[in-house]
Formats: sequence, structure tokens, C-alpha cells
Amino acid sequence: MKYTLLIQCDDKKGLVYKISKVLFENDFNIETQQEFVDKENNKFFFRAVIAGEVDKEKLKNEILKEVPCADVEIFKKRKKRLFLLATKEAHALGDILIKQYSGDLDVEIIGVIANRNNLKDLVEKFNIPFYYIPAEGKSRVEHENEMLEIIKPTNPDFIILAKFMRILTPNFVEEFPNKIINIHHSFLPAFIGANPYKQAYDRGVKIIGATAHFVNNNLDDGPIIEQDVTRVNHEMSWEEMRVQGRDIEKIVLSRAIKKAIEDRIFVYANKTIIL
Amino acid sequence: MKYTLLIQCDDKKGLVYKISKVLFENDFNIETQQEFVDKENNKFFFRAVIAGEVDKEKLKNEILKEVPCADVEIFKKRKKRLFLLATKEAHALGDILIKQYSGDLDVEIIGVIANRNNLKDLVEKFNIPFYYIPAEGKSRVEHENEMLEIIKPTNPDFIILAKFMRILTPNFVEEFPNKIINIHHSFLPAFIGANPYKQAYDRGVKIIGATAHFVNNNLDDGPIIEQDVTRVNHEMSWEEMRVQGRDIEKIVLSRAIKKAIEDRIFVYANKTIIL
Amino acid sequence: MKYTLLIQCDDKKGLVYKISKVLFENDFNIETQQEFVDKENNKFFFRAVIAGEVDKEKLKNEILKEVPCADVEIFKKRKKRLFLLATKEAHALGDILIKQYSGDLDVEIIGVIANRNNLKDLVEKFNIPFYYIPAEGKSRVEHENEMLEIIKPTNPDFIILAKFMRILTPNFVEEFPNKIINIHHSFLPAFIGANPYKQAYDRGVKIIGATAHFVNNNLDDGPIIEQDVTRVNHEMSWEEMRVQGRDIEKIVLSRAIKKAIEDRIFVYANKTIIL
Amino acid sequence: MKYTLLIQCDDKKGLVYKISKVLFENDFNIETQQEFVDKENNKFFFRAVIAGEVDKEKLKNEILKEVPCADVEIFKKRKKRLFLLATKEAHALGDILIKQYSGDLDVEIIGVIANRNNLKDLVEKFNIPFYYIPAEGKSRVEHENEMLEIIKPTNPDFIILAKFMRILTPNFVEEFPNKIINIHHSFLPAFIGANPYKQAYDRGVKIIGATAHFVNNNLDDGPIIEQDVTRVNHEMSWEEMRVQGRDIEKIVLSRAIKKAIEDRIFVYANKTIIL
Repeated sequence: MKYTLLIQCDDKKGLVYKISKVLFENDFNIETQQEFVDKENNKFFFRAVIAGEVDKEKLKNEILKEVPCADVEIFKKRKKRLFLLATKEAHALGDILIKQYSGDLDVEIIGVIANRNNLKDLVEKFNIPFYYIPAEGKSRVEHENEMLEIIKPTNPDFIILAKFMRILTPNFVEEFPNKIINIHHSFLPAFIGANPYKQAYDRGVKIIGATAHFVNNNLDDGPIIEQDVTRVNHEMSWEEMRVQGRDIEKIVLSRAIKKAIEDRIFVYANKTIIL
Repeated sequence: MKYTLLIQCDDKKGLVYKISKVLFENDFNIETQQEFVDKENNKFFFRAVIAGEVDKEKLKNEILKEVPCADVEIFKKRKKRLFLLATKEAHALGDILIKQYSGDLDVEIIGVIANRNNLKDLVEKFNIPFYYIPAEGKSRVEHENEMLEIIKPTNPDFIILAKFMRILTPNFVEEFPNKIINIHHSFLPAFIGANPYKQAYDRGVKIIGATAHFVNNNLDDGPIIEQDVTRVNHEMSWEEMRVQGRDIEKIVLSRAIKKAIEDRIFVYANKTIIL
Repeated sequence: MKYTLLIQCDDKKGLVYKISKVLFENDFNIETQQEFVDKENNKFFFRAVIAGEVDKEKLKNEILKEVPCADVEIFKKRKKRLFLLATKEAHALGDILIKQYSGDLDVEIIGVIANRNNLKDLVEKFNIPFYYIPAEGKSRVEHENEMLEIIKPTNPDFIILAKFMRILTPNFVEEFPNKIINIHHSFLPAFIGANPYKQAYDRGVKIIGATAHFVNNNLDDGPIIEQDVTRVNHEMSWEEMRVQGRDIEKIVLSRAIKKAIEDRIFVYANKTIIL
Repeated sequence: MKYTLLIQCDDKKGLVYKISKVLFENDFNIETQQEFVDKENNKFFFRAVIAGEVDKEKLKNEILKEVPCADVEIFKKRKKRLFLLATKEAHALGDILIKQYSGDLDVEIIGVIANRNNLKDLVEKFNIPFYYIPAEGKSRVEHENEMLEIIKPTNPDFIILAKFMRILTPNFVEEFPNKIINIHHSFLPAFIGANPYKQAYDRGVKIIGATAHFVNNNLDDGPIIEQDVTRVNHEMSWEEMRVQGRDIEKIVLSRAIKKAIEDRIFVYANKTIIL
């Protein structure tokens, strides 16, 4: 058995010592351990992967006795369960499907919801339930509630927006705090909003990018998990930029998923600390 | 109709003028045109995409009349036909399958040959013929001849080695000059040979990469089409480098395929000129 | 003698043919030639480097006879003359000084103006005139006019803002259209305005960048010449991002200068076409 | 006062706890702390920056009492002293000079030795002693001994080979184990040996790079500290690759120097662990 221990609290002297003491006295094998202090906000972040038998409640209580104010989470290592949302583009979704299929991404895909129907065939090739939930003629909240009815009972670890081209309202977002990961097809905060490739083309940039972030209530403004870029030039149309950008989108998204399912990401002050 | 015109010849004065004259007098619409002079080797390379009705023989003869020594090729623009070879890894193959499926790569996949059987299920999901041709108990040439019997009648435009982990002999290679594209899982010429990720790990490099190249008779020494890299660090095992490297491999390979199917690549002096 | 020929005009059939004809009939040696068609705007761009004796007026007239509407420029190849503006940071300025000193940048530096005095010692080490022109107590236009009095008589080819931290008004900018190159310390259009490193830190981006652009009347909105990026992480303060970013800034700026002094840059529709 | 504590030892349970205990009981302020376990070699690496008054001998003894086998080093934070070796290229040397001048690199430059004389003027602009020690007519060891006579009495923290184009023998290298940092103008292990840019050009690579490494007795085979790359294409001559590569060389070198002077680098099994 392996467990990931995540601790977040106000920084003060001796935190590593006190936490290490608990771990040492429990005779755990510590596979990896990192800590980080955000000096600007005086916050301490700690992550360890522990091998052995762990009584989660007992361990948590022992840590809280040493470090009272801490926010302590202990995750048993297991295959994380993802629910995917998409619209009509296949690249980000397809990359996750292939990676799950080949084992490069150690997850279970519970299902895929899309507001278009064209990805049904692809998803079902992989024996994954596909739910076509069109948005036409529905309010945002009605559409979201239809999705929530399917998603909520499955209790996913993360919801992945694999080019889901609709804005989610607080009605949906607040159900899954720091559990919804979106891939935005630009190097945020550049080109917020619609058609960032067209915006990038019009602005004449020499590099385009993609950004994976947690979704919060401010559109395109959630905590950034991962970004990457690729070079473009004056010879390219915005449609060519879009095709080239898709490779970056899918890779940035799958890197972000990897960090999330390994329980490596802390969120604080609208930023991510990745240990 | 669109046609790609590729011309290669010794450089001399007036080549662009003479070729442009033929194109102008034929009243073609030239969509794009590039030329390059390799001064070291005194070689001229020219590529144009022409829209309209083209009598290929007539055009070729007119160009040869103006530019006698030239090597002139004219390709009608059409969906290129690829034959894929693989072994057991799904990432490069899967990326091509998804891109073909979604239309991001405008090709027909004739079939997939593999010397392991595990990719059969994936390939057949996409309704593409899969041929399992194990190599055990056969000489290299025997194994190749079994593959050639399947491939040759299909007359593919390109043969893509999507992590085909066997060395091809001249017996196979010489059937398809500058038509076999391999993805090598290192930043060539570093880490030639077996298990480059292990080699990279052992050497302690801070960046790993992948190289797409045409296959010739010298292992890992064919003309390089495309390369890219990704950063690694001391925390990573070589297996983790391999997983991270796969994203680079598949992207580098698909970029190389894209250039090949668009008839953009000249090969000269064991290098590629990409117009 | 070498000459660079730049032609820009509305696209139509036969432009390359007609221009090539003039060059061929004049028996020029063409060292390099590129052309680009912006299909969205139906614009044709042509650049050639010609070796030999060129009568610029005659050549221009011959081209205009064949291609009447064209905007034709012919530059004799010579060491370009730069005037540099700075404030107090040494990195971008110092990089240009070292590159000019070593010959990696083939330019003459006419002089340096700064609105702080601390770079005087560095500049004078390289025997380049330094002008300290403080801005305190002056209107923008007064300050600019003091600078213009020094710069204008020297007739520079380009004015390089090597971290000149003041906004230039149309009063200054319009004297040097597409001749003022600025380095902005962010990946534009992200983080326009003051202290982009602090903005990047606050937003929690994972990559920072720099942008070289021509200066026009809209702050940070001129045509982009070159961009590049570098990876950052949660461990870095914004001051550390700034130090790391400086290497990107100086390299992006010197790449842009190199393209400018080689007469490779066309400006159209607030974008650059670099041939 | 700040101190950097570096500990290296065989991995076993409780190391972080035991070290943290010593630091806690001494009531130190720990500014930053990282640890890494090399599982392949079962080695533990620890780095902490401590603020406060530290009795180095006492602290070392207390740690050794808890962790007997450890290799413990404690460095008082101070401006590190560098001796630079060069040949005739100005870019890497110039970048260090400018960074030292501007404060972006917090070092003292003791002196510069070169086996050519052309950099004398540049170095002396910055009031740094320049020693011209030609190699002609001397054996390697004689030449090295002349350099050692100058360098050894100055007791430098690091010796920086800023494009010093001569091979150092064990006679020199063994005087400064893991203290000599070289910049190699290729992406090692590709293109070992002479003129890597020409080699890269001849091989037709699409990306070139640079590698900073500690110098050991095997040419170009020392532990790699930092690498980076830049894209090239078929249009570039090898001389153009060299000029473009110089920006990468100098940046990679200065990043490596930064890590070295901050006492962040462990060397083990011919690799670097950078905390």
C-alpha cells in the first residue's frame, strides 16, 4: 500500500521536524518527501509518499497534535477516476483515451459527456459510456443539471474538460472545487475568451501556447497547472495555428492530469504549488 | 486541382526566372512558391503549389527545355497513403490513428504490420487491417520479405515506423528510398542504438529528445526531418523519462509525416531541405 | 557590393516572373530570394539579396515598369547605425555592447541616451557617447525633444529601446516609423503595462517571456518581431523571475535587431513578415 | 548570516527526521530545505539554507552524531570568487562580465587567463586582471603549470572555462575537483570533440544546443549541470549556427554558474543532483 500525505499550514519553525517525527515514530517507509514555504504568504506545504500500512485517522490525529493548525489530507494510492467533458474536437479526448488504453495514464475513465454527438463513435470504440447532452434550448443551469445528474452519482476524482467549449456556471463549478481541469487553447492570460488562435493570428504573435488550469468562477482565471508553447510564423493561417496548437493542448492537459492524479497539486492564492 | 512542383538542379543564374516564365506562360495560379540555394553544394531547390488544370508531362518538358539538367517532379495533390509498422507501444501509432480519424492528418492508412500482437485490438477499433508478423525463428530478410509481400502490392506513398523496434536491412530499405520515416527516441546523433532513455539517464542529461528521419542503410543515420526536446531532471527514473519522451516522439513523428505528405521535403547530401 | 531589394505590392499573377525577369536581364547574381503572399490581405512580399554593381534608380524604375503598383526599396548593404535608449538596467544594453564589440552584431552604435546616470560608466568603457537626459521636471514632449535634438542629426537606421522604461508619445514615435524597436519584458499580449514580472508572479504562470516589437502609437501594441519564453515555477519570487527573464529579454532583442539590420522585416496590418 | 548545509549519505529511514531534529534543537531559522533520494544508488541528498549564528564545527558534529556516515558540508553564504579561462571568443566571458558588473551574478572575478591576447582590452575595461599565457611551444603540462602558478594562490571557489578551447589534463583538473565548469558548444553527448557546429551542420540536425558540465579527466564527459537548445534549419551555414549558438552557450553557462555559487549542486555517479 502507498499513501500520499499532503499538509498545508501557516509556516513556523520546526514543521518538518515535527512531521518527520510522527512519520519516523510510526516507522513508515517514506518514498519521497518535499516541502515548500511560500514566504510571501507565510504558508508551508508538505507532500510525502509513504509505503506501508497506514491508519489514516490515527496518522492525521498524530500530525494534528504536533502541528495543530494544519490542513492534513491522506490519500491511499489508487487508480483515479475521471469524468471527461468534450464538445467536438477529438485531439485532447483521443490523447487521454490512448494514454489510458496504453497505461501511460493510470486512470479509469468513467464516462464522457459531450454537447455534440460526433465523438460518440470514437469514445465507444474504447468501451467507455458516452452521453450526448445537447445544450440547445436549455438554460446554462438546466444543461449543467443534466450533466450533474450523470456525473454526481459516479463521484469522480477529477472532471476533465477536454475542449469542452462551454462556460460552466458556479452551479456546476462549486460542486467540484479544484477538481475540474480545463485546457485553454492559449498561453493565458493572453487571449482570454473566444477563438484565441484567431486572436493570436490577428495580433501577429510568434509563439502560441496552451494552459491547463483548475476551473473556478472566473472564466479563464483559475489556478494555472501547466503551460507550454510552440513557435509559429507569418506563413501560417489561424487554422494552421489551431492544428499545430492542438498537439500542445493535449500534451499540456495530460501533464496536468498526471500531476493531479498523483496528488501533487496544492492550490493557494489562486496559484498552484506542485510538489 | 492542385499540383506540387518540386525541382532540384545545379544552381545557376536565372533559374527562378526561367521556371517562373514557364509557369506564367501557362497561366497557372501559383498558390505558394519557395526556393533555396545550398551554396556549399551549389544546388538549387524549388517548390511551388499550382492550382488549375496541369498536363504533367507537358509542364515537365517545358521546364526541362528551359532548365535542362533539372530533376523535376509534379505531384497531383491527393490524400497520401501510409503503411504503418509498429512493435508494441501504442503512443505513436495511436496519435496517427486519432489524427487520421479527426482529419488533422489528411491521409489514408492502408494497414498496420507489427511484430507483436498486442496492438491488434487498438488498430482494428479504427477499422484498419492489422497484420501480425512475428520475427521469431526467421532471418531478418525472411521477416522483411513477409512484410514486403503485404506492403508492396499496396504501393504506399510512405512507410511510417511508429516505434517499430527492429532494424531494417537494405533488402527492405532499398525498395522505398526516402519513403520510410522512422521516429528515433533520442535527440540524434546522441544515444544511437538500444534504449536511448536508459543511456540518457545514465549520462545525466538535462534534456531528452526525439528525431524523425528517413531510413537509409546506415542505422540511425538517415536524413533528419524533425527533432524536438523536453526537459528532464535528476528526480526522474529512466522509465519516467520514457513516458515523458513519448509525447515528444509522437509529435515529432506526426510533424514529419505532415511535411512528407505535403511534398515539402528534398533530400540532398544526407540532409533534408524542407520548403 | 551587395544590395537588398524589398518589394511589397498587391498580389497578382506573374509577380515573381516579372521581377525575376528584370533581375535576370540585368545579369545580377542573386544570393538569396524569398517571397510570401499574405492571402488574407492579398499582399505580395519579395526580398532578394543581389551581388554586383546596382544602379538603384534604374533598377527601381525597371521593376516599377513591370510591376507598377509596387513599393520598391533597395538598400546597399552596409553597417547599420543604431542609437540606443536605456534607463538603468545593464543586461540588454550590455549584450548589444558586447555583441558589437565582438562582431557578432555588425552595427555601429552612435550613442546611448538614458534617463538615469548609472550606465554612463559601462557605455563609456566601450568608447560610445553617453547622454544623460533626466526626465524629472519636464513634460514628456520636452524630454523627448531633448532626445530628438541629439538623435535626429545622427540619422540612425534604428533606435533600440534597451529597457528604456518610459512611454514615447507620437511626437517622438512618428519621427521614426518602423525604426524604433522595443523589448517588452513579457510574452505580449499578456501582462501589458507596469511590472509584468510581478503580474506574472501574481497570476501564477508557469512560463514567462519577452517580446521585441516596433513601437507605434499604441503602447505595447506595435508589430511583434520576435518572442521567446522560459519556464518558471512556484519556488521563484518575482524578483527571481525578473533576473531569469533578463536573459530572454536580451536575446529576443538582439535577434530582432539582427533581422532589422539585415533588412528582412516587412510591416503590414500591424504584423511583421520576416523573409 | 546565512549558511548552506549540504549532506550526502546512504539512504536509510529517518534521515530527514534526525537532521531536522538537530536543526530544530539549535533553534535555527530554516529558509529553504530540500532533500532527494536516488533510489537506484540508495543515496540521500539534503540541502538547507539556515539563517542565524552557526558554529559550523559544532553543527557538523551534532549532525554526524545523529547520521554517522554522512558527508556534511556547511558553507557560510558569501560572494563566491571565480577565476575565468578563455581563448578568443568574447560572448561567454562578456556575459559574465556584464552580469557581474550589473549585480545579476553575485560573484567576484579574480582574474582572466587566456591563451590568446585579443580579450585583454575587454577584460581590462572592467578592471579585472588579464593574464595572457600563450600555449605555443609548451607542453600541455608546462602551459597548465604556468596557469596554476597564477590561479592556485588566489584559491578560487570555481574556475569557469568561458570558451577556453584547450583540453586540460589531470595535472590541472585534479587540483580542482568539481570546481571547474566548462561550456561545451553542443548538446552533449552529441558532437563531442572539435567544431561541433560544423558537425551539427554536416549531420543536418534541426536543433543545436550547449552543455555546461564539471570537468573531469574524460574529455566532454563530466557531470552535466545544465543544457539548452535552439532551433536551426537548412538555410543556415555552420557559421550562422555558431553565432546563434553563442547566445545559448552563454546563458547555459551562466545558469550553471548561478547554481554552483548558490551551493546547490551535488555530484554523484557522474551526474548532478541540483537542489
